[in-house]
Amino acid sequence: MASIEELLKNKGISKPKVLKRSDSRKPEDIRNVRITRNYCKHALGSCLIEVGDTRVICAANMENKVPPHLKNTGTGWLTAEYGMLPSSTSTRMTRESSRGRPQGRTHEIQRIIGRSLRAAVNLNEVGERTIWIDCDVVQADGGTRTASITGAYVALKDALEALVSQQTLARNPIEEQVAAVSVGIVDGEILLDLNYEEDARADVDMNVVMTGSGNIIEVQGTAEGRAFSQEQMVSMLNLAHKGIQQLMKLQNRALGIG
Amino acid sequence: MASIEELLKNKGISKPKVLKRSDSRKPEDIRNVRITRNYCKHALGSCLIEVGDTRVICAANMENKVPPHLKNTGTGWLTAEYGMLPSSTSTRMTRESSRGRPQGRTHEIQRIIGRSLRAAVNLNEVGERTIWIDCDVVQADGGTRTASITGAYVALKDALEALVSQQTLARNPIEEQVAAVSVGIVDGEILLDLNYEEDARADVDMNVVMTGSGNIIEVQGTAEGRAFSQEQMVSMLNLAHKGIQQLMKLQNRALGIG
Amino acid sequence: MASIEELLKNKGISKPKVLKRSDSRKPEDIRNVRITRNYCKHALGSCLIEVGDTRVICAANMENKVPPHLKNTGTGWLTAEYGMLPSSTSTRMTRESSRGRPQGRTHEIQRIIGRSLRAAVNLNEVGERTIWIDCDVVQADGGTRTASITGAYVALKDALEALVSQQTLARNPIEEQVAAVSVGIVDGEILLDLNYEEDARADVDMNVVMTGSGNIIEVQGTAEGRAFSQEQMVSMLNLAHKGIQQLMKLQNRALGIG
Amino acid sequence: MASIEELLKNKGISKPKVLKRSDSRKPEDIRNVRITRNYCKHALGSCLIEVGDTRVICAANMENKVPPHLKNTGTGWLTAEYGMLPSSTSTRMTRESSRGRPQGRTHEIQRIIGRSLRAAVNLNEVGERTIWIDCDVVQADGGTRTASITGAYVALKDALEALVSQQTLARNPIEEQVAAVSVGIVDGEILLDLNYEEDARADVDMNVVMTGSGNIIEVQGTAEGRAFSQEQMVSMLNLAHKGIQQLMKLQNRALGIG
Amino acid sequence: MASIEELLKNKGISKPKVLKRSDSRKPEDIRNVRITRNYCKHALGSCLIEVGDTRVICAANMENKVPPHLKNTGTGWLTAEYGMLPSSTSTRMTRESSRGRPQGRTHEIQRIIGRSLRAAVNLNEVGERTIWIDCDVVQADGGTRTASITGAYVALKDALEALVSQQTLARNPIEEQVAAVSVGIVDGEILLDLNYEEDARADVDMNVVMTGSGNIIEVQGTAEGRAFSQEQMVSMLNLAHKGIQQLMKLQNRALGIG
Amino acid sequence: MASIEELLKNKGISKPKVLKRSDSRKPEDIRNVRITRNYCKHALGSCLIEVGDTRVICAANMENKVPPHLKNTGTGWLTAEYGMLPSSTSTRMTRESSRGRPQGRTHEIQRIIGRSLRAAVNLNEVGERTIWIDCDVVQADGGTRTASITGAYVALKDALEALVSQQTLARNPIEEQVAAVSVGIVDGEILLDLNYEEDARADVDMNVVMTGSGNIIEVQGTAEGRAFSQEQMVSMLNLAHKGIQQLMKLQNRALGIG
Repeated sequence: MASIEELLKNKGISKPKVLKRSDSRKPEDIRNVRITRNYCKHALGSCLIEVGDTRVICAANMENKVPPHLKNTGTGWLTAEYGMLPSSTSTRMTRESSRGRPQGRTHEIQRIIGRSLRAAVNLNEVGERTIWIDCDVVQADGGTRTASITGAYVALKDALEALVSQQTLARNPIEEQVAAVSVGIVDGEILLDLNYEEDARADVDMNVVMTGSGNIIEVQGTAEGRAFSQEQMVSMLNLAHKGIQQLMKLQNRALGIG
Repeated sequence: MASIEELLKNKGISKPKVLKRSDSRKPEDIRNVRITRNYCKHALGSCLIEVGDTRVICAANMENKVPPHLKNTGTGWLTAEYGMLPSSTSTRMTRESSRGRPQGRTHEIQRIIGRSLRAAVNLNEVGERTIWIDCDVVQADGGTRTASITGAYVALKDALEALVSQQTLARNPIEEQVAAVSVGIVDGEILLDLNYEEDARADVDMNVVMTGSGNIIEVQGTAEGRAFSQEQMVSMLNLAHKGIQQLMKLQNRALGIG
Repeated sequence: MASIEELLKNKGISKPKVLKRSDSRKPEDIRNVRITRNYCKHALGSCLIEVGDTRVICAANMENKVPPHLKNTGTGWLTAEYGMLPSSTSTRMTRESSRGRPQGRTHEIQRIIGRSLRAAVNLNEVGERTIWIDCDVVQADGGTRTASITGAYVALKDALEALVSQQTLARNPIEEQVAAVSVGIVDGEILLDLNYEEDARADVDMNVVMTGSGNIIEVQGTAEGRAFSQEQMVSMLNLAHKGIQQLMKLQNRALGIG
Repeated sequence: MASIEELLKNKGISKPKVLKRSDSRKPEDIRNVRITRNYCKHALGSCLIEVGDTRVICAANMENKVPPHLKNTGTGWLTAEYGMLPSSTSTRMTRESSRGRPQGRTHEIQRIIGRSLRAAVNLNEVGERTIWIDCDVVQADGGTRTASITGAYVALKDALEALVSQQTLARNPIEEQVAAVSVGIVDGEILLDLNYEEDARADVDMNVVMTGSGNIIEVQGTAEGRAFSQEQMVSMLNLAHKGIQQLMKLQNRALGIG
Repeated sequence: MASIEELLKNKGISKPKVLKRSDSRKPEDIRNVRITRNYCKHALGSCLIEVGDTRVICAANMENKVPPHLKNTGTGWLTAEYGMLPSSTSTRMTRESSRGRPQGRTHEIQRIIGRSLRAAVNLNEVGERTIWIDCDVVQADGGTRTASITGAYVALKDALEALVSQQTLARNPIEEQVAAVSVGIVDGEILLDLNYEEDARADVDMNVVMTGSGNIIEVQGTAEGRAFSQEQMVSMLNLAHKGIQQLMKLQNRALGIG
Repeated sequence: MASIEELLKNKGISKPKVLKRSDSRKPEDIRNVRITRNYCKHALGSCLIEVGDTRVICAANMENKVPPHLKNTGTGWLTAEYGMLPSSTSTRMTRESSRGRPQGRTHEIQRIIGRSLRAAVNLNEVGERTIWIDCDVVQADGGTRTASITGAYVALKDALEALVSQQTLARNPIEEQVAAVSVGIVDGEILLDLNYEEDARADVDMNVVMTGSGNIIEVQGTAEGRAFSQEQMVSMLNLAHKGIQQLMKLQNRALGIG
């Protein structure tokens, strides 16, 4: 990766100048992350992930059936659901069950969580079972979807490990480590891991999900304000990669790996 | 109250003999209770209440409008919502927003929470505002509705205090302390504060909500197995009263009172 | 039971003084009750129960399947639904099917009807079948849930009798007679079987469901206004017991028993 | 009308030969009709209409607002809702509120009831008010939609009369008497007022709504089995007209007219 | 048929006098019709039907299962769904999926399309399969339901032909040609095939569905303004018959028949 | 842009080798595009866009109100809805209105269409009005969301032009031209504008929305199979840019510009 950055530098695309962030982080810093493993006694795997003031409970469970299109294929499935407690946001959010249906944003987020975690696991080895990932935001301060993915990986890994211990699975079908981070452009500067206040002011907001080997599983970048150049895109990806590498160390530490 | 119990004793209704409880409590013991005040940074008042392995996030917020039937009456309203995280139960629960509507049990519980807390506060003094109480079960091990009420009182008290500090209200309109506990009959013995395993085996399950002065706000007793006598009813109320007195001390300690 | 009342009297808790009721009943009087058996030609068992101006059609039917959790257990199930015609109330009620979902109150009521009737019948003897109880309020004047339970018992008894006649069941699995009544505190007086006008003014409203032997199946007491003492609770239970004894005679007369 | 029938006869289209009907009526007979006026104490106007074993509660109420498209037009509106009790049919029907939405058939029926009754009344004279018609089928044995219309006319007439008595309206805005009946072809014979058993066997089922002067408000004819000729159509209309004339006499008798 | 018209003429019921129509058609003219066969590459049978400015995409597909009540009967089913694009109407229509449920009008229309097409086909010969008819209005200018039926016949015929080619069916189970047209009374004149502007002014609006042999499958006539006589009814049926004969020629031409 | 590509080339990242595409396009070719302007007579602006066999009706309409959060801000809003006709897909899709709610995928797509078009227009100049964009897929063969965005731009431009002609707006508030295309990796080759068959086999699927100046409004890339490198990401963006430049010429030609 470094070489592309070098090439960019040669093209005169300078590093962003330091902007004062509300929590006095440097542009390339992620927030403090705390992962409390086994947070839910009833779940197969679970954690509470805290990324700054964002707090998400992630849980992984298993159900002995698959969606209709996978019946009799021998292959498993992984699906994710995402929710926010009404009191998790600065203005109380209407409970989705009262509204009768999840909002569009919720659908969008649970689809990205599902796709990201499916990339982590070899579903052929799961058998005709569905892994349910639940990410419930207890407190929101920006980056809830990326915190959900990062935490869900920990819950998933533990849940699959539990299935191995129970001899339901012969070996852990995790194939890739997965973590996610946001990166954005605020006042012309590229910042890593936006909190809510930064996100609200951002011209561009991008979520990046990567594997342990630095490849991209999902990238979603949106110009809320001004459209962005392909050069900015490359710089943002680079910064996201660095953040994800740190998050993966924290995941592994929580899992007692390395 | 003691005198009625004496009278009952004279009638030969003996105290229940000690039964071995799964967590080695005595029949008249409540579980360990921990109340973490100000658990949610965005809520006006909030706490995490833990009663044994049952964990509920309680939050209180305020909205500047009232239901249609209270418009132009000068009177406020208090309403409660209750939810369970899908991973809070031993078998993963279907998310209510996916199902499109809350279940009957949810409706029943949020109605009792609402009625109980409305008994705590003088709504005339709240003005044309609605207090929203949210009780979200993070982990369930029996007694989630009574833990919700007990925790919601703490959140409500703090929320109203915050409105006084903001000078939205002239004085705190709390008039009664409110707490709740369950009591039941298991294998013929009356037990206080049932956990899930006891609740599942109970012949009778009763939820009692009381004021600080020991009066009843709500009592809901159901014979799941065998119908119960009026004498058993009185004994259960007595035991509930004792449990509630302890819970009120814990509420006050959390609130820094007394 | 009488002895407890005596004991209470010794404690100086006097009987309520007579209050003028809108329909000139005495505090301890139930309203006129009329039960028209076999009201619906298509139902297995049915009746129209009229309690004062409250009119409820109760029907019991049988379906040859059980909820998932009872499959292959050999055990049956009983479930109840409750509805109100839009024109049954003084202000026309919005039809629940137009609203898209039953209200919380409806859920609460159908759950109590179901639990109460399940207490009447030995579901092991019903086999893998579901008994559906429908209680539809044609005209409401207070006490619709208790009238529903009292009427549903008659419909249920007849429906099970019909299943015996059809040789679907070997014997009638009814084990307990079940009836229900409300009792409340209005202007400090304890009144039996509140009509709508009394219910609207009541400080306490309590619904009691009992078996033929005077034991409690369900008790739900709510302080709408002022919290109530345990002594008042005992007096209300006593009065409810008397009302239920009369209702059971009327049920039996309708069924041609005794 | 008679002359067209004569003309048809001249064309050799003979009268249907007498078929044995399950309730031994002649082909041109309507069933026994009983209209119990003022059936619901809370409705402005109401009746229970019984047509053979079909029983429908019809109620009319008034609301002080109109749909958005009529605001500030000075004109009123009339809308109808139709429901069936779950126990009204031979196999218990799923409650529409449980299903979350009314069925297509329900929509179709409430639309025809609404259009038919709107034809009876001068909505300009109603002012900006909505008349709500509720037709709830207590027992179904064919012809529920036509019984609903016939009964709803009585409820509507009384409701408007009540509004005149209350001086809400200056005069009764009813302009046309309205009644409805079904007619069908069973085994090649034209029969009036089909019961359920006949309806199930019918090749053609037609519902006709007419005014007092014999004009058509609505005609809906459907070939369930074999398509029908225009000659049969004319004969059916003729027979329907005769039935409606009898129903109008019964409406007037119930209303104490003539 | 002609003879009835003659008889009517003898009775002095004169032909309607010519009214100036917005598109300068004569009262007895249908609009220009264009049928583009095989409009959807994924459907088994399909067409785009244009009737004046009304444009409907009709498609027929097959599913290998039947509704519960037809299981194990060897008989097939045909069901229809109808929708309008939000931009098909002069004022943008709210999307029904956003609203959460189809409107009453939609239900009414899809039921009539279904019944009409079921009359065309011998469902016993379809086997346990469901034919799905989809009629989606791309542009609405009156007569969308009759255009839907007329176009759906073409799609259905082709779909069944395709099933014969695939050897799923031994022979094409179409038994009757089916087409539909509207007819109405505007300013006292009987007009064929109303466009939106005429429909909005009509006193009577009638939809007629007929077979190739001139028999009636469905007739639905509604007096929006003034009730209509039986003589007018007969004249309208006559005119509809003429329109349908022309539509059937156009269907056959599109299908390459005759 | 060219310079980055050169740099990449220097790094030895070669151009993809030519793969045989089902419609014999070269990897860097878009499909045939046809834009039929003013397709819907009732819409303010509209077109039918055909991209290969994908066909989408795009319409733009205006409503004189804004969502609550924009009231009294003087600013307008633009929102998009997306739907698919049931017969648009190779296996008939269940109609979303029957299902009661749009699917997650639908939500995701209508959100991206909305965000993309909002980037095209200066909403401050629209005043307190909402622009509704409807994209309805008549036939799907891959790339429906990007075709929707490309077509919606044409409809939007015309709709705003119409508002200028009607003197509702002083000048056309379009600020950026917007178009979108998909790009993916199939069997290791980067292909532009995937059709359905290619999309189904793709390892990576990326949708790119750009402005006329080549900046990115939205990029969404998903590894369905294998994660992709940042170098591949850059190459895909480059290819997308070329496709979008061609689409913009076609938009302008349809609009009669240039």
